[in-house]
Amino acid sequence: MANKKAVVLLSGGLDSVTVLAMAQQQGYECHAMSFDYGQRHSSELIASAKIAKQSGVEHKIVPLNLRLIGGSALTDDIDVPDYEPDSDEIPVTYVPARNTVFLSVALGWAEVLEADAIFIGVNAVDYSGYPDCRPEFIQAFELLANLATKAGVEGKKLSILTPLIDLTKAQIIQKGLDLGVDYAQTISCYQADDHGKACGVCDSCVLRKQGFTAAGVKDPTIYI
Amino acid sequence: MANKKAVVLLSGGLDSVTVLAMAQQQGYECHAMSFDYGQRHSSELIASAKIAKQSGVEHKIVPLNLRLIGGSALTDDIDVPDYEPDSDEIPVTYVPARNTVFLSVALGWAEVLEADAIFIGVNAVDYSGYPDCRPEFIQAFELLANLATKAGVEGKKLSILTPLIDLTKAQIIQKGLDLGVDYAQTISCYQADDHGKACGVCDSCVLRKQGFTAAGVKDPTIYI
Repeated sequence: MANKKAVVLLSGGLDSVTVLAMAQQQGYECHAMSFDYGQRHSSELIASAKIAKQSGVEHKIVPLNLRLIGGSALTDDIDVPDYEPDSDEIPVTYVPARNTVFLSVALGWAEVLEADAIFIGVNAVDYSGYPDCRPEFIQAFELLANLATKAGVEGKKLSILTPLIDLTKAQIIQKGLDLGVDYAQTISCYQADDHGKACGVCDSCVLRKQGFTAAGVKDPTIYI
Repeated sequence: MANKKAVVLLSGGLDSVTVLAMAQQQGYECHAMSFDYGQRHSSELIASAKIAKQSGVEHKIVPLNLRLIGGSALTDDIDVPDYEPDSDEIPVTYVPARNTVFLSVALGWAEVLEADAIFIGVNAVDYSGYPDCRPEFIQAFELLANLATKAGVEGKKLSILTPLIDLTKAQIIQKGLDLGVDYAQTISCYQADDHGKACGVCDSCVLRKQGFTAAGVKDPTIYI
């Protein structure tokens, strides 16, 4: 039997790098895709390229400037706020339709590769409350994906796999460490500087920091 | 009441230009979006810009190079074939996940604009058999769109509107002429030259030509 193939959405952050390691462990031939979407934290792209290379997987960085649309602290002239515990609001770091866009382009590549799955590191436990990280969104995208493509019409089923969806940040970190992930190389900060140093105060930094603490593991992140 | 707002996907072809005219007639404040996706027929982008300007609508052209993915005669080194009548095959001009990608980016813009609808000129009668032109695909995308966004979570319903879906090409042309569309400015050919001259033999040209004949209207297209 030929290898199972997958497209893995790789941001260069803690979650997506863990997903790549998990997909490889599950026997998938992985093809990683990242987006240069005008994010503030473009040092994550350098991280993603390095990690893809070390993992021995093909890697495409797709330029798609979401600043044309704006509407987010990550892609517009809006400050990244500090972490707000227990907020019910969807934060301003939410990028309109970002995961829908990323999954759609990944879907096109998956069809060309004749892939069986797309992996995405969404998480509905220690997360920022983005609507496009919820299980019902992922299910709706999988339904759409199998109607959208020639492959789908011809009966080739594509799965959208989210192995982190029910894990805490601490569990994700533990899983990654078991698989040999070097988290020092990952960048989660929404406003990391050009050298990849993290701010330590944004949502993404705080959730990550709390994860290392809860996992009882030394945080390898370099903060500004 | 404030104007209803819509994002209109505008390729510069016969169908999408008719949709723009219909959306304006229905009272929508329209915002047109086109994609520079590495298509062979990039003269359609010049057409779309001219038409948006004449229609008095905001227009964004999003660079998103689908040649990175390939897999289509429009975005890869595969020849555009001549029209095949009554073929059951999905043709090689199908671009993997194209409408999914276009609708996703339009969804992001729609959210920023607080739009009520996205218009897309898909058609399931005189069309090339692409899976992402079928009503079931559009329904699945609408479902997804309302789960994907902050606006959706907050209860603002977005509709995906396809006013051409059940029309023949001749009916579309008749509708457009009634609304004052100048089809001489539209470009449908998959391999139009730099001056916008059409090949006359690809799927898209033949369906268009047959449409003008069936509508009993002079075909204003300039062929090579």
